[in-house]
This record gives sequence, structure tokens and C-alpha cells, in this order.
Amino acid sequence: MGGDESTIRYFDASVPDIMPDFSLQSTECPILVGIAGGTGSGKTTLARRILEGVGDNHCCMIQHDWYYYDKSHLPFEERMELNFDHPDSLDNEFLRSHLTDIKAREPIEAPQYDFESHARQEETRHIEPRPVVIVEGILLFAVPKLREVFDIRLYVDTDADIRAFRRIRRDLQERGRDFDDIRKQYYETVRPMHLEFVEPSKRWADLIVPEGGNNHIALDVIIERLKQFIDR
Amino acid sequence: MGGDESTIRYFDASVPDIMPDFSLQSTECPILVGIAGGTGSGKTTLARRILEGVGDNHCCMIQHDWYYYDKSHLPFEERMELNFDHPDSLDNEFLRSHLTDIKAREPIEAPQYDFESHARQEETRHIEPRPVVIVEGILLFAVPKLREVFDIRLYVDTDADIRAFRRIRRDLQERGRDFDDIRKQYYETVRPMHLEFVEPSKRWADLIVPEGGNNHIALDVIIERLKQFIDR
Repeated sequence: MGGDESTIRYFDASVPDIMPDFSLQSTECPILVGIAGGTGSGKTTLARRILEGVGDNHCCMIQHDWYYYDKSHLPFEERMELNFDHPDSLDNEFLRSHLTDIKAREPIEAPQYDFESHARQEETRHIEPRPVVIVEGILLFAVPKLREVFDIRLYVDTDADIRAFRRIRRDLQERGRDFDDIRKQYYETVRPMHLEFVEPSKRWADLIVPEGGNNHIALDVIIERLKQFIDR
Repeated sequence: MGGDESTIRYFDASVPDIMPDFSLQSTECPILVGIAGGTGSGKTTLARRILEGVGDNHCCMIQHDWYYYDKSHLPFEERMELNFDHPDSLDNEFLRSHLTDIKAREPIEAPQYDFESHARQEETRHIEPRPVVIVEGILLFAVPKLREVFDIRLYVDTDADIRAFRRIRRDLQERGRDFDDIRKQYYETVRPMHLEFVEPSKRWADLIVPEGGNNHIALDVIIERLKQFIDR
């Protein structure tokens, strides 16, 4: 959980002859793994595969999505017009405090969000700390207060056309929306916010994973490294 | 060492509920690690850090550069005009056969290249197979016959301006060239070949490492995973 300064990569350092201290070697359990990437990039699949690979008795997952601000006080039409792709639409302070708690091995009561009513639900989700904590969301690295708490930052990078097709299919098939609606939202908020916040946040990644959860080599390297934290 | 088809990533696969077979789990030692990336990206530093981290008794390195075609038959002025950034300037069949040999745990006699005379030297370099074999070069993934032999493909991604500054400094300080020469070569061959061959070859990477050898988290994840091959 070092400060953000340590990860800025604009320097042209000459290479010292001694091996650097790896910050992961001295990382205390639990290890916080941030997974970001654009809509449809496959980051949720990557997160799920890591969870399965590490084993859910050793690993828990938190989604940035759960921390959307409650908008139930707005008229329904206004809720439909909300911009869900801007960092300020999420309660980042709340997530930050939960990540601090879980890093201190304390359980959290994570909020749950209802995407149909755009309201935070009364029930919470009890999350017990595990040696590996995965946090997933498109905007995780776009918010300095969030990105600086991760021990490992992974960015899932997938071509924009593939991401667009996946999002359209998901919204058509799973959310029952029509194509014109999907298209309007994509042009009005999804794409501009991606270009302004998500894509530039790739710069903060420690590793970039092309094509997320279907990249077996990347999955293997990441999962086997994380398993070493459990064995420790 | 599967065929190239297995790594094409344009499919929009639905996610099966069973864990995939990781191809690394069944990989026979030695494991071949390809490291590519543009000039000045830090890929040589990454390769050296991995070598140090894994330990040179367990790891050897091969450079694509060693396999440049001999141009000693050309007049000196023509040698100065050569395009060293095109895949065809290298003897890729020769490197491929050496990688096949080393994967079969046979030692190789690697060619050595003299960059002042642009001639292949008479002496060779004896390379004993080690559990981890690192191969490094800007064009490794641009050549299908080469990229398909690697068990892990790493691409070091660094901003173009940082790469340019590093190359200029190296050519000024270590190679005694003047700025106008460096600039001419950069515009005439280095940059066009980067855009045509190197940058698009990033698509074949399993993991993209931002800023190469100074990214401690990426180094840790990769080195600790590779060490597991030695312990096996």
C-alpha cells in the first residue's frame, strides 16, 4: 500500500547492478489485486478465473459496481439518463475504507446495488478477508485513492470492436434493451468516458493482459504467483 | 510449442464453467520465454533482470540480434545503409532451428555478430540448455515461425518518446554516432519498421509489461512463476 509516487513510470532510470527489492516479497497478506479494463474487455471473466484458480476458500472478490451512489430519490426518467461511466458516480471513499479494512484482515459489509431501480439495497454482502482479495471495475485505476491501495494492478486490454460487440450482445440478451438505446448510451457516455478515464488508466497497470480470461498463459502466471501467497 | 492457431484471439468465446487446461502446466522443461518490444523499450533490461532473478545456473539467454545475416561482402557505404529493423534482415530459420534444438535439451553454437563490420564472426557462443531459456529481440513476434515456439510471450510496452530518448542517448554515448545520423536512421528505417512490424506484433503477447525492467511487480510475478519450473 505504498504511495502513488512509487509507481509513476516517466523516469528514464539507468539500471543498477543490484537486484531491486520486490515490493511483493514484503507484501503482507491479504494481497489486493485490482483488475480494470473497458466494458466488455473480459475483466469479470479474468476475475472469476483467478477466483476459481486460487480457490474461493483462499480468495474473495469485491466489485466497484456495488459502490454506485443511490439515485432512488431521482425521478425514473432522470435515473435512465445517468452517467454510470464517470468516476464520480461511485462512492470511492466508501470502497477505499472497505479496502483498508480488508487489508487489515477485518470483514466488511459491502453495499449491494440494484441496477433496475438504481438504488442501493438495504441488505449488505458480508465479505470475510481472504489471503487474495480481487477487486474488479472499469474505473479502479482512474481514481488515485483507489489505485494506490492495490498490491498488483492488472489491466485487461481488448480491441474496441470486440468490446462493443460483447456489450451489445449482453445488453440485448441479458438486459432486454433495444439496439437504439444501447447505441445512444454508448455514444453519449460509455465511449467518451472510456476515452477520458478508462483507457488512460492503463498507464497505472503493472501487467496488461490481452483478452482477459481466455489468455491461458497469463492466467497461469498470475494464478500460480498468487497461490504462493496462500502457501506462505 | 503448439501451432499458432491456438493463440489467435479474435473469437468472442462464451465462458465455459470448467477451468481450462493451462498449457503451461504441461509444458516440458526447458520453458522458452520470448521477450519483444520496440527499440529502447527496456526489453534487454527485463531479460537481464529475469536472468538475475531466476539465477544464471537455471537460465540462459539468446538474442535475436546475433542472427543478422552476414553483410561483409557489401561495400562499407552500402552496409551503412542497411535496414536492420526488417524481419528479413535476420536469419530466422537458423534461430528457429536453434530454439528447436534447445527445447530438445541440446546445446547450440549461437552465431555472434559484429555490429561495426556487419559481419558474422567466426567464433560462436556455446549455449547449454537451462530450465528457463530467454530469447530477446524487437522482431521475435513479427515472425510466425519464431513466435509459435515460445511457451510465454512477453511484450515490453514503453511510450515512444521515452524509447526515442533512450535510443538517442545510447547511440550518442555508447556508439559515438552524431545526432543527425541517428535522426536520419530513425526516420528512414527504425520508425517505419516499428509501426509496420514491431507494434502490431504486440497482439501476440500473452502478457504486456509496461516499462520493462523497472516494473517490480511484473518482474516479481514473472520471476516467481518461472522459478517453479526449476523446482519441479
